[in-house]
Amino acid sequence: MKQAAVHRLPMAHPGDLSALADLIERGVVDPSGIVAVMGKTEGNGGVNDFTRGFFAQSLMLLLARHLGRDPAKLAREIPCVFSGGTEGVLTPHYLVLCRSGTSESPRPGGALAIGVSFSEPMPAEHIGRRVHIESVAAAVRAAIRQASIDDPQQVHFVQVKCPCVTAARAQAALARGKTPLTTDSRRSMAYARAAGAFGVALALGDVDPKLIDDAALLRDFSLYSSRASISSGVEVDCNEVIVFGQSESWSGPLRIAHRPMSDALDIGAVFGVLGDLDIAAAPQVTPADAGRISGVLVKCEPDRRGMIRGNRHTMLDDTDIDAQRHIRGALGGLVASVLGDGRVFVSGGAEHQGPDGGGLIAVIARN
Amino acid sequence: MKQAAVHRLPMAHPGDLSALADLIERGVVDPSGIVAVMGKTEGNGGVNDFTRGFFAQSLMLLLARHLGRDPAKLAREIPCVFSGGTEGVLTPHYLVLCRSGTSESPRPGGALAIGVSFSEPMPAEHIGRRVHIESVAAAVRAAIRQASIDDPQQVHFVQVKCPCVTAARAQAALARGKTPLTTDSRRSMAYARAAGAFGVALALGDVDPKLIDDAALLRDFSLYSSRASISSGVEVDCNEVIVFGQSESWSGPLRIAHRPMSDALDIGAVFGVLGDLDIAAAPQVTPADAGRISGVLVKCEPDRRGMIRGNRHTMLDDTDIDAQRHIRGALGGLVASVLGDGRVFVSGGAEHQGPDGGGLIAVIARN
Amino acid sequence: MKQAAVHRLPMAHPGDLSALADLIERGVVDPSGIVAVMGKTEGNGGVNDFTRGFFAQSLMLLLARHLGRDPAKLAREIPCVFSGGTEGVLTPHYLVLCRSGTSESPRPGGALAIGVSFSEPMPAEHIGRRVHIESVAAAVRAAIRQASIDDPQQVHFVQVKCPCVTAARAQAALARGKTPLTTDSRRSMAYARAAGAFGVALALGDVDPKLIDDAALLRDFSLYSSRASISSGVEVDCNEVIVFGQSESWSGPLRIAHRPMSDALDIGAVFGVLGDLDIAAAPQVTPADAGRISGVLVKCEPDRRGMIRGNRHTMLDDTDIDAQRHIRGALGGLVASVLGDGRVFVSGGAEHQGPDGGGLIAVIARN
Amino acid sequence: MKQAAVHRLPMAHPGDLSALADLIERGVVDPSGIVAVMGKTEGNGGVNDFTRGFFAQSLMLLLARHLGRDPAKLAREIPCVFSGGTEGVLTPHYLVLCRSGTSESPRPGGALAIGVSFSEPMPAEHIGRRVHIESVAAAVRAAIRQASIDDPQQVHFVQVKCPCVTAARAQAALARGKTPLTTDSRRSMAYARAAGAFGVALALGDVDPKLIDDAALLRDFSLYSSRASISSGVEVDCNEVIVFGQSESWSGPLRIAHRPMSDALDIGAVFGVLGDLDIAAAPQVTPADAGRISGVLVKCEPDRRGMIRGNRHTMLDDTDIDAQRHIRGALGGLVASVLGDGRVFVSGGAEHQGPDGGGLIAVIARN
Repeated sequence: MKQAAVHRLPMAHPGDLSALADLIERGVVDPSGIVAVMGKTEGNGGVNDFTRGFFAQSLMLLLARHLGRDPAKLAREIPCVFSGGTEGVLTPHYLVLCRSGTSESPRPGGALAIGVSFSEPMPAEHIGRRVHIESVAAAVRAAIRQASIDDPQQVHFVQVKCPCVTAARAQAALARGKTPLTTDSRRSMAYARAAGAFGVALALGDVDPKLIDDAALLRDFSLYSSRASISSGVEVDCNEVIVFGQSESWSGPLRIAHRPMSDALDIGAVFGVLGDLDIAAAPQVTPADAGRISGVLVKCEPDRRGMIRGNRHTMLDDTDIDAQRHIRGALGGLVASVLGDGRVFVSGGAEHQGPDGGGLIAVIARN
Repeated sequence: MKQAAVHRLPMAHPGDLSALADLIERGVVDPSGIVAVMGKTEGNGGVNDFTRGFFAQSLMLLLARHLGRDPAKLAREIPCVFSGGTEGVLTPHYLVLCRSGTSESPRPGGALAIGVSFSEPMPAEHIGRRVHIESVAAAVRAAIRQASIDDPQQVHFVQVKCPCVTAARAQAALARGKTPLTTDSRRSMAYARAAGAFGVALALGDVDPKLIDDAALLRDFSLYSSRASISSGVEVDCNEVIVFGQSESWSGPLRIAHRPMSDALDIGAVFGVLGDLDIAAAPQVTPADAGRISGVLVKCEPDRRGMIRGNRHTMLDDTDIDAQRHIRGALGGLVASVLGDGRVFVSGGAEHQGPDGGGLIAVIARN
Repeated sequence: MKQAAVHRLPMAHPGDLSALADLIERGVVDPSGIVAVMGKTEGNGGVNDFTRGFFAQSLMLLLARHLGRDPAKLAREIPCVFSGGTEGVLTPHYLVLCRSGTSESPRPGGALAIGVSFSEPMPAEHIGRRVHIESVAAAVRAAIRQASIDDPQQVHFVQVKCPCVTAARAQAALARGKTPLTTDSRRSMAYARAAGAFGVALALGDVDPKLIDDAALLRDFSLYSSRASISSGVEVDCNEVIVFGQSESWSGPLRIAHRPMSDALDIGAVFGVLGDLDIAAAPQVTPADAGRISGVLVKCEPDRRGMIRGNRHTMLDDTDIDAQRHIRGALGGLVASVLGDGRVFVSGGAEHQGPDGGGLIAVIARN
Repeated sequence: MKQAAVHRLPMAHPGDLSALADLIERGVVDPSGIVAVMGKTEGNGGVNDFTRGFFAQSLMLLLARHLGRDPAKLAREIPCVFSGGTEGVLTPHYLVLCRSGTSESPRPGGALAIGVSFSEPMPAEHIGRRVHIESVAAAVRAAIRQASIDDPQQVHFVQVKCPCVTAARAQAALARGKTPLTTDSRRSMAYARAAGAFGVALALGDVDPKLIDDAALLRDFSLYSSRASISSGVEVDCNEVIVFGQSESWSGPLRIAHRPMSDALDIGAVFGVLGDLDIAAAPQVTPADAGRISGVLVKCEPDRRGMIRGNRHTMLDDTDIDAQRHIRGALGGLVASVLGDGRVFVSGGAEHQGPDGGGLIAVIARN
């Protein structure tokens, strides 16, 4: 049997790995058991957010030192998926995802299972196109296999980090005679997220494969997966995948549940997913129950129709603050206030990830 | 007997008064009964937010046309208190506060009462100093009298708009041989809000008058009023006051309640104030109950100690997004998700307005 | 003979018309002779910049009061074209453009001539499409006729303000069964500027009419007019045009000259256009010569290829500051330092307005 | 004899040291001769700018690998002073400053000399106070000695990087029972820069030592050094100093000159300093002469009185864009357009560094 552990750790700045270093030094975390790291850094979450790259470099240096490995090679084995932007009450933090063997017996319904994979590199001209979708789908299937999850319905959350088109990468593609879908970096991030979501939907069977077509990207928002969470950023050049689910090949106290969020005010989804894990909020989770929670993962977006429940919102027309920063701050306020805890992974840009104008929430908790 | 009415109206942009124009034309609102207007515009809420001035100019033009009055004089009689910033799920909207006579009999506990007043103009050198505090206190007392509220304990919410020091006003003061407390416009807004809060506390008896001293402004945050909501902006040159309370001299179906918020995650305060008005949220207010709500007023701030319940927040160290924009977005997400409605007046900068790091919420609803 | 006058005036905020009011009251400006007003306000220059609408409302109120006219009708006769954004050393200011009769005799080469026109309203679905281009071209031709300029080569600067697609307008179009070219407001502003530039090029003969096609918009940047300056904003619903040129039907001391700018570092174009007007800069214009200058109009853009003379720039990948704000600040620094004066109209978004990655500069000066 | 070399290198992102790695691998740069590195990264230049730390970490890793040293120790020996913010036409780049022995004979007037030093760590409570000033002065004197510059008048430029007070550091100081001068991180950066400038002025004799007092910091702007360039940032905990001057103990082709800038439009200073180095601009430096230039260092600030040559600027009242970002973009446009080159180190926050409202420029060029 395998067993997953999730350590939720603070950072003082994007280069601060001291909390993990301490756990390794104290023997709490075996560095060879770390399969992935994900979290929130305090950048702007946009094309020019280098906090993610800074964290990743610092993490790989730490692990390389402990494992006697080359940091560049480790970076191709351990997904380090960060979302920039700790707007409002959110706090910079990271989840260290570990796998170990255990002699525990299986539990009914299984336990939290984690698998990872990396695709081949994606040149700029492929981003947001069919080849991108299929690359993600293949990587997701590989991660499901690695997690020993037999039934795709037992997958609860798939995190993918996709590369985007920067001005420099676009120029490089053009110099090779290739045409990126867009040279606008912000738009390329949206296309990359959409393609990633379609890839997850294809792998999980959330959308009829006949409808999966790159012409539908950023157009037909009735097509989505409520288990896909896609980020895009300048710091990766291939698709990195982390799959979370339940598997009877895994044991231990951790479970995961998820719910779609119908819109940016869907507080019912938060109460719902907590209820799935037998955690009450009345209206806030008690400190004792909050202590059972190991990770909270939220995906959301500013409704593209410019309205939420009949009221105009101003996120899409704001030239000063990026719409993704707006929506992360709002959802952060919503979710953190129910939990009484700002350690929430909230990522914007939920194109085809949950219902149009909404998103999804997943929670990992101990029994 | 007097009776209050509150109309909560949308705007398409900061110069759009069409919703109010329509109500006046249809005879629903008698323009001579309008005592104050407050709301949220989609500016940045900072020194260079001119959406508030644009709305006020447009409002006064509309009312002047209907009342056959000079708009400049109306602006000295009808407070028009706006908070810029509709971050996240918040929506631009305004509350038109009206007073009329009624033949209804008094109700036990009274009904919503509203009073307004204007102080003398505040030159830049007085802002954030003792004379500012006392000017606000006198204006609050005048508004309480106008509202026929006998007991200061029956006051539930006092909105004050104070002027701030802009670069131009600071230069003008220096040219007169006067020294403003600060020439940093952002800091002057904080001092103005603090002085306004002390003025309210003095008028309501929320703080021992012996402790009310301008040396304590922005220093001793144990001194506060949970009924003070202070904005500061470039578009006013005197202190404008709107007092909300319960009075047996008023009748009609409207009531008001308020609660302090202990910190930026205090979702319990939202449930609490709704409960005070016999409105349930499980976890969201039903559409039927939401229809009873006429106005939601929230004040909040980014905790100056840099932590919320033990987790670091990044609002104060962000050079790209003003801390007040951050906190409005987070509290907007919290409150709007409980109500299922983004029409929430959330104003940042809660210095001495509610507990340190927290703020307050007031709700106006029909029985 | 007609004669043009240009008054360059400061504003304390976007609703401040006191400088013009003073000139009218002192008889310096005849309000009935004002043909257009253009300038810089201190907004962000983006979709949610309401400083332009605030100024326009304030201007029309002032003129309506003096002329005994309806402000809404005046707004359809007097173009009020503002560019938001006074980044860096730029200062909020406006040019009041006046026309009067004169008994002066014609001068060789003529004198500054000004003409204006308005197109029909542009619904969201037309913006950035062929019908938009032709609407602008027709309006430019009308303004040239009004200015009594016989030869299109005598036109030196054409300012057009085009509407854009906001979230609300896009929804309205979709509700009518129409499809806007884009529902992304930022992109719609770029398309609107491009269509406006093609319209100017078509009217002036700067581009072979056979090449003028909406498929080339934002694609073939070898097509441009060095005399087109296009803004786009939420505050207009039709295309407003102001044409500046030289005409022998006009007299008086004012002349205009223009130069293309090859890129964002083309300080030579600034010296060149000053030289065309017999003004030296060594390296800065003397205060005496600066006093001869009545207006400086600059259009520029962040090079879309991400490089300026071989060095990477970061304007296009910045999620915190809009690229147009970046480039206005840089060109403002360049031009204002040569002039020793921050009263420069610098407008970003120079798609098809001057060479790719560059723009243009026009200067109005007295002999 | 010693000889200085300056390599001006591009970076593709803040973790990209490939250009230096290439020079080391090709033997052009001897890593053991590197005495300091300074440059511009594409962060926001504010408290939450982590691009500087990311670059520094990457640099020290590269050097440690080549030198077989511990990167943490190297970081205490080689100042790595970066200014965040490549607004407008500025480009991310860095100067690698090297020292080697040479058999060349001395030149009249000497040649470029470089010296460095580090102060002891500065706890938050000392920042912006007397002890901070003296710590900087001592470090500057040490760097002058290291550079073998005998006469302080031969110093042309002193770069200091000072720590600032972050929310976390302020809390730590308070927990120790110490009171920082301010807990507002933005203000602490201003105080740190001011204290650094006083330290330089004290060491160079630019201000009468009797007038050097922390009460004058950010108050008496008639006190300044035109040779001080101070940055402040979260990524350092002590004062790091780089001194540039002319010394007859150094040989080689490099020279340095500097000029104060009287205000943000002082293009004459740019022409002046180029003239000091026998470089003409008419109005732009020729490509051949531009090739002689090895480094351009500019310090500037938004005039705190809100006016530039009688015109109001809006930098200080902007809630969306930090005033330092504004001024860097404007000065970048000014200086880069004269040079025809965006590789300019422009740093904002010039309190007491050059005339009030102005700053300074230094240029390093080959004969």
